[in-house]
Amino acid sequence: MALTLFELAGDQGRRFSPFSWRTLMALRHKGLDAERVAVKFTNKDVIAFSGQDRVPVLGDGDTTVSDSWAIADYLEQTHPQTPSLFSGTVGRGGAKFINAWTDLQLHPRISRLIVRDVYDSVHPDDKAHFKETREARYGASFDSLHETRDQHLGAMREVLAPVRVALEDQPFLCGESAAYADYIVFGAFQWARCASPYALLEGHDPVHAWRERMLDVFGGFARAAPGYPV
Amino acid sequence: MALTLFELAGDQGRRFSPFSWRTLMALRHKGLDAERVAVKFTNKDVIAFSGQDRVPVLGDGDTTVSDSWAIADYLEQTHPQTPSLFSGTVGRGGAKFINAWTDLQLHPRISRLIVRDVYDSVHPDDKAHFKETREARYGASFDSLHETRDQHLGAMREVLAPVRVALEDQPFLCGESAAYADYIVFGAFQWARCASPYALLEGHDPVHAWRERMLDVFGGFARAAPGYPV
Repeated sequence: MALTLFELAGDQGRRFSPFSWRTLMALRHKGLDAERVAVKFTNKDVIAFSGQDRVPVLGDGDTTVSDSWAIADYLEQTHPQTPSLFSGTVGRGGAKFINAWTDLQLHPRISRLIVRDVYDSVHPDDKAHFKETREARYGASFDSLHETRDQHLGAMREVLAPVRVALEDQPFLCGESAAYADYIVFGAFQWARCASPYALLEGHDPVHAWRERMLDVFGGFARAAPGYPV
Repeated sequence: MALTLFELAGDQGRRFSPFSWRTLMALRHKGLDAERVAVKFTNKDVIAFSGQDRVPVLGDGDTTVSDSWAIADYLEQTHPQTPSLFSGTVGRGGAKFINAWTDLQLHPRISRLIVRDVYDSVHPDDKAHFKETREARYGASFDSLHETRDQHLGAMREVLAPVRVALEDQPFLCGESAAYADYIVFGAFQWARCASPYALLEGHDPVHAWRERMLDVFGGFARAAPGYPV
């Protein structure tokens, strides 16, 4: 069991990739340890062996798996005796939908709010690359995105409405205890928490209470990561 | 096993309620029959016994259950020997999220496109009530909503993106065969199909192919319902 997780490196030990957080929580869920290797945006040669340039990448002996969803499937298949991430094909189907929804609907709205803060947390070697690519994506400077972000906070909170409803009668998206669908959505908030002091959620929001529960699981594993306690 | 399903009545035998379709498919999934009783918008006295005024309502002997989600839970609990709708709590959690997403994100966008057509399919006794309440909701006349609907088609197709991604590697949202999460999203399309000739989906859309599969399950049960084959 020599697992290695290649994940995005930030400044001062910050590891803010939401996709890596999905995998980190999945590994904890299954009680698996992995050596964590930090990869900079501008030094993707480290993961060239994976045949692509995105993190996370999981190495398991001679096997290499990239993409957080594929890694979850791989862990589920190779460690069937450990607690399940999906609890079968129906649960996997629901998680797959939530995965796509998080990527397509939630991440862009959180990114709009924290991108300048993420820039501050990016590794010094990566700052020029990050600024160029992200400002081009938005067609705006980090400063102007930052100054106008309060106008976009409501839209992010509104898109969370299905999460709020799903938590009405259960403490976690997956029911009485957390599983992979929770880790997917939580990854988005942990991305923000590791990189930004901006308060995304109001204290009375059920999503806030759920995030607190997620920070507590696995002995406070995610809470212990360098970040901002908002 | 004397089940009765109270569902919204349309004109000429059309039963277009998306919520009733969730329950109709769930009953088929479990191999259960129910007497179907049509209820008009303007004659909710028929379901006054349920203590509220929305359909579907399921009657099971002395037990009354309203709200499609509560009905699914009830069927799952009272018929544990039949095929499961959720396959456990994790699957139920994913379905709950998809239920909320469908209600909050998908239904409003489909409604915007078909509301004038739904009006045409509403029972004659209900037309005045439906027109008044729906035009007030939109702040616009049915005619103007109808004339401008093509401008809103793209937004509906775009919000389906997570469904499209979820279907990339499996024929149904729930995996190899359909279950409750599929019925939730399908209910929205069956609502449209029963009431509107408007083509919501392009032929090459994976969501279109999935809808065809859904129309085929249970021996073409949903396909046989009066509607428009688009």
